Amino acid sequence: MPNLPAKAVVLLSGGMDSATTAALARQQGFAVHALSIRYGQRHEVELAAAHHVARSLGVAGHVVQTIDLRAFGGSALTAELEVPKNGAAVLGARASGSTSAVPITYVPARNTIFLALALAYAEVLGSADIFIGVSAVDYSGYPDCRPAFIEAFQHLARLATRAGVEGAPITIHGPLIHLSKAETIRLAGRLGVDLALTHSCYDPTPDGLACGACDSCRLRRKGFAEAGLPDPARYAT
Amino acid sequence: MPNLPAKAVVLLSGGMDSATTAALARQQGFAVHALSIRYGQRHEVELAAAHHVARSLGVAGHVVQTIDLRAFGGSALTAELEVPKNGAAVLGARASGSTSAVPITYVPARNTIFLALALAYAEVLGSADIFIGVSAVDYSGYPDCRPAFIEAFQHLARLATRAGVEGAPITIHGPLIHLSKAETIRLAGRLGVDLALTHSCYDPTPDGLACGACDSCRLRRKGFAEAGLPDPARYAT
Repeated sequence: MPNLPAKAVVLLSGGMDSATTAALARQQGFAVHALSIRYGQRHEVELAAAHHVARSLGVAGHVVQTIDLRAFGGSALTAELEVPKNGAAVLGARASGSTSAVPITYVPARNTIFLALALAYAEVLGSADIFIGVSAVDYSGYPDCRPAFIEAFQHLARLATRAGVEGAPITIHGPLIHLSKAETIRLAGRLGVDLALTHSCYDPTPDGLACGACDSCRLRRKGFAEAGLPDPARYAT
Repeated sequence: MPNLPAKAVVLLSGGMDSATTAALARQQGFAVHALSIRYGQRHEVELAAAHHVARSLGVAGHVVQTIDLRAFGGSALTAELEVPKNGAAVLGARASGSTSAVPITYVPARNTIFLALALAYAEVLGSADIFIGVSAVDYSGYPDCRPAFIEAFQHLARLATRAGVEGAPITIHGPLIHLSKAETIRLAGRLGVDLALTHSCYDPTPDGLACGACDSCRLRRKGFAEAGLPDPARYAT
């Protein structure tokens, strides 16, 4: 019997972090099954980026799952609110030193939902490994990007699944969790990830240019500046 | 300022357990916001039952969220497989005394996904209370119906959310978890729940009659028999 590679489910948003995470999973010998979520985000162009990233990595599979978080409302990313620009949200929250300042771009329970869907996909595939590209360093202050959250989800996954019941516990991998954006960008370079294919902006122009001013654009630009590398993204400003 | 009741999100499938759970939440003084999930189940008639139950309880709100678990495949409830009849799944699993025998009607990560969606809805509503009608007594052997699973999700919810970060932790209520089906049926009677509105069958006829033979029908019939009460469901056999 041929020695088939183990399967991993990788949450792939189309941004730099998830693209780098998918490349890491591949480097570790996993057959990568990418999962992208259409959740009513304004920046749906990132799903096209996810498609290009998945193809460039030669993934074993790519499923796009659709949910409608708009039915619940309540976030700038999914509702008809203005995306904060020029650091109104993230820099204000971080400069204050408060751990409770969560920016309004936070999507309720997003990573909980995404990991739950990844868990379902992993169970069906017979995969015991889920990868998510969260970072607790250069992030936007969301509670569901922290190591304790990842550990709690792993504990849940081991109780929630047939695999867990039958003794093959699922592992949640967050390989970027302690990396800064600049470190992730350098890692992507070493892994050969084409970051020109990735999309980060929360509020792109109709032509698909990045706004350059939202939290996500600011974190990306700061990361490239710190890494001393040119950012291949096309910006409106 | 009027003293508004606290809001609770109640997962409402349209079955007996979730209807009774919703009535309990209402009795405890919560404004009930029901959440039903259309997930590609064959027994979609249960969503119509959820609507009737929600209306009869006078809920404050009812959202139906759609996800497509069929994209992942892998379950008799969502894929085109035969639903086991006459105890082929559940009775075999339970009779063997094995804790690892999970029936094929198990939907991967279903309660994890449902609670994740409920968590998002609760965050948007400003609710700190989520109710789910799982029971670890007369159940079908699914791993995500056990007390340890509910506790693990509550721990996750407190780490995953803005409310948790800001010190108002979310509670996951599973008030039926230690009740048998017969005990739930008696409780429903005391609470005035009209169980004729509920739907349990995994494989109803085109006319909406319960099959009478799937795991869910068998558990329901056994519960009414043990409770010494007539079952208002209409059965094909």
